[in-house]
Amino acid sequence: MKESFDKERLDMIVDFCKEIDKEKFIQRRTYLTGGERFENDAEHAWHMAIMALLLEDYSNEKVDIHRVVSILLIHDLVEVYAGDTFAYDEVGKLTQRQRELDAADKLFAILPEDLGHRFRSLWDEFEAWETPEARFAHTLDNFQPLMQQDLSKGKSWKECDRKLSEVLRRNERSAQGSEVLWDYARKTFIDPQIEKGNLIED
Amino acid sequence: MKESFDKERLDMIVDFCKEIDKEKFIQRRTYLTGGERFENDAEHAWHMAIMALLLEDYSNEKVDIHRVVSILLIHDLVEVYAGDTFAYDEVGKLTQRQRELDAADKLFAILPEDLGHRFRSLWDEFEAWETPEARFAHTLDNFQPLMQQDLSKGKSWKECDRKLSEVLRRNERSAQGSEVLWDYARKTFIDPQIEKGNLIED
Repeated sequence: MKESFDKERLDMIVDFCKEIDKEKFIQRRTYLTGGERFENDAEHAWHMAIMALLLEDYSNEKVDIHRVVSILLIHDLVEVYAGDTFAYDEVGKLTQRQRELDAADKLFAILPEDLGHRFRSLWDEFEAWETPEARFAHTLDNFQPLMQQDLSKGKSWKECDRKLSEVLRRNERSAQGSEVLWDYARKTFIDPQIEKGNLIED
Repeated sequence: MKESFDKERLDMIVDFCKEIDKEKFIQRRTYLTGGERFENDAEHAWHMAIMALLLEDYSNEKVDIHRVVSILLIHDLVEVYAGDTFAYDEVGKLTQRQRELDAADKLFAILPEDLGHRFRSLWDEFEAWETPEARFAHTLDNFQPLMQQDLSKGKSWKECDRKLSEVLRRNERSAQGSEVLWDYARKTFIDPQIEKGNLIED
């Protein structure tokens, strides 16, 4: 009996693992090195998870870095159903929260209850922005695409006539997770793109 | 003085984070859902890191799952310089070890020494296959592409006239990390592809 129960549980986990393969198709608006193609959500999450391991010391507050890594790995999973809401899409953002809540209900229900609950808790924690781990994860979630702008010579900013005020608004809470990283991003990734004319100082 | 030192350290970490963006261009030979395109190394690592969090209980031995996740995130980084050696490329495999050792020396040297040493240790641990964490990571490294065959209806096996004996040889140590997962993969991912004629039983 135990064996057949285990099989059902493992089937549920594998079904979930198969479903999230779709995250590899969710395209973001930041380019990879050289600007050849856009990054996707899975690549973004992988990159940040490694960055978290390396940048832990720059968090404003002491964090459980392994929870930060887990949060970053799963933070975009709901987009498998809700789609990516572009950071500067003010219309899409109006419905984003409800679309993502519905997606979370649907997606995490594929898993056995205990595991679904564990992943849902990590996602809720990220969304609530209330723990040091969530704050640091959000800072990395903003820092990494700014680094990608540097790698792709501000290509997507230039293409969209992006304004500095929009970038600053998107990053208004970035310093909450790490003052050092936000300051570094401002000086190293943002300011040079203004000088090069790829980002409009308004 | 501290500030200028810190800047140099952070510059080194960011240089490394930029360099590993290249992993997103390293194409594997397994297809994504629907068989539209090949998976890349970054997507593969992301997927397995999440799978590790969900499949921990199926490891033969108790593991520090966060170290497994770290190992999986970084296990293919050396391919940024060494390139991907296809699992069934018997000629490429002859030089793989030396190419990857050279790549590791070059890549991890970009980081500050302490962090470079930490990542190098994780990679060495994976390569040595001697700890429970390394064994479980290797099993996932084999389990995930088998799942991708299921998701892509055995497409790349069919295209290459892949033989069962080759798949079994590649997986000869898969049960060392998890007998349950290897048994499941055999029955759920491999055998159906033989029945469908996508994998040749030799």
